[in-house]
Amino acid sequence: MAAELFQPLNPDYQAQVRDSFDRQPAMKLIGAQLVEVTPGRCAIHLPYRADLTQQHGVFHGGLVGTIADSAGGYAAHSLMPAGSEVVTVEFKLNLVAPAKGEMLEAVGTVLRPGRTLTVARIDVYAMQGAARVLCGAAQQTLMQVRSDHGTGKPR
Amino acid sequence: MAAELFQPLNPDYQAQVRDSFDRQPAMKLIGAQLVEVTPGRCAIHLPYRADLTQQHGVFHGGLVGTIADSAGGYAAHSLMPAGSEVVTVEFKLNLVAPAKGEMLEAVGTVLRPGRTLTVARIDVYAMQGAARVLCGAAQQTLMQVRSDHGTGKPR
Amino acid sequence: MAAELFQPLNPDYQAQVRDSFDRQPAMKLIGAQLVEVTPGRCAIHLPYRADLTQQHGVFHGGLVGTIADSAGGYAAHSLMPAGSEVVTVEFKLNLVAPAKGEMLEAVGTVLRPGRTLTVARIDVYAMQGAARVLCGAAQQTLMQVRSDHGTGKPR
Amino acid sequence: MAAELFQPLNPDYQAQVRDSFDRQPAMKLIGAQLVEVTPGRCAIHLPYRADLTQQHGVFHGGLVGTIADSAGGYAAHSLMPAGSEVVTVEFKLNLVAPAKGEMLEAVGTVLRPGRTLTVARIDVYAMQGAARVLCGAAQQTLMQVRSDHGTGKPR
Repeated sequence: MAAELFQPLNPDYQAQVRDSFDRQPAMKLIGAQLVEVTPGRCAIHLPYRADLTQQHGVFHGGLVGTIADSAGGYAAHSLMPAGSEVVTVEFKLNLVAPAKGEMLEAVGTVLRPGRTLTVARIDVYAMQGAARVLCGAAQQTLMQVRSDHGTGKPR
Repeated sequence: MAAELFQPLNPDYQAQVRDSFDRQPAMKLIGAQLVEVTPGRCAIHLPYRADLTQQHGVFHGGLVGTIADSAGGYAAHSLMPAGSEVVTVEFKLNLVAPAKGEMLEAVGTVLRPGRTLTVARIDVYAMQGAARVLCGAAQQTLMQVRSDHGTGKPR
Repeated sequence: MAAELFQPLNPDYQAQVRDSFDRQPAMKLIGAQLVEVTPGRCAIHLPYRADLTQQHGVFHGGLVGTIADSAGGYAAHSLMPAGSEVVTVEFKLNLVAPAKGEMLEAVGTVLRPGRTLTVARIDVYAMQGAARVLCGAAQQTLMQVRSDHGTGKPR
Repeated sequence: MAAELFQPLNPDYQAQVRDSFDRQPAMKLIGAQLVEVTPGRCAIHLPYRADLTQQHGVFHGGLVGTIADSAGGYAAHSLMPAGSEVVTVEFKLNLVAPAKGEMLEAVGTVLRPGRTLTVARIDVYAMQGAARVLCGAAQQTLMQVRSDHGTGKPR
């Protein structure tokens, strides 16, 4: 499917997304970097570190999921109005090849934005030299909440 | 559904699971602890640390997924023959309440073991004092591989 | 996990669920029967017919999903206030054994009800004589909408 | 992601896929039509009928899932060797808009083919006059089995 062009509701969407990302200690812990945000799209990098691996020296699948979750979440956030936050309702990840390489790149793309719920897909690539191999494929549901809500999970 | 009773194929399943867990640097990084393994069931604890949180001070959803993935994976591994390893094919996680508390507990249970594929469900609880609140619910597909395979992802 | 006891908000939840089920022509087409609704739980039967099968004479996986979707949806609906309807946000189904038998039974159970979103799990059993074999396992997210909304899918 | 070009292992993949589709009574029951198969891609149409709907007159979500499951399954089957069959391990579907229109079109695309497991994504569109609206988005895991296996579900 060709990428759709989305109009952001918040002219400062970049600042809002980066500010939210920067306030996530877990992203710092693993060394994830927000490298690109455009309307309805977000890319996150995770450089290799030995302490991010499972028993075979490749990135742990849980961390593949962690950056996929963030990339999809911020892709959705980029289309939400000023003063909003995004929470993940659910996500589903297929690990389709070993996450082996110098870096992972997770690219989230909004499929269908909505007032309440947004659906995104995320591709995660393992990068080694010039090679870029799809290692994870995810689909995710996100919810918009007011940022004064404060809890990170509305009901 | 009443928990089924499974017979382990590997009498040393406990040692095999614990050995695999101990060789996962990512589990050490986040401070996850394997607290219980019985045939077809595994529990993992994740004590609170400020560097495991998102912007609202609760556990990051990606890490809820990471321990859910491990708990389901080792529940499956406990039923596999000696010399085998387990890899995650895919998992799906609903974040049903804020992951807020002193500790998370992920409990994985095998629904259906198989020669090639095993299906597990995982419940993640947020524990605060005496309260134990379901914060994550997952369903997962796992694959058995020979441990001499070495790559962590067969095809 | 022990089944939780839920208090229905709508004293006439049974009538509301049965009325909604009866207005679904697709359920009639395949011959699905709503056999039980209690607060947070719903069971649906699908008796065998040759025209419900795939190429090996067992129930088509898509129809396993169809009754799983309905069982989880009505389990959620039973806990919603009068005048509300339920729509499926997403569902995930594992087909864990051939859906072979005289009848399928899908049992949906609410994991976590919410004002906006509800999460349910569903087990589907293939019944043959005295045997009752788990053939499908699903997890689902549902949304409450006002019944005057009319479209079957809010945003 | 740009569509990858896949080389079919079976020169008669079209005949093998169409033959399998034609032997599925459930596809006949709902009136689904296999309209296109190319290597790693399959499209299925479902023309509107009143008996395929839920209570608001739009296609039942379970049937959106049924044709999504088939479109992804046959996209995968097109890349498998002669004499093989495909079974669905699991699928996850988001219903992103009402399935309202004269016809549904499900387009399945293989993301990652494998000797044992294949992963596909599926988009389902609701078509009304000139409009073509995404109403369903799915991700699916499939398994290759030998056609002499006979049961439709290996373990």
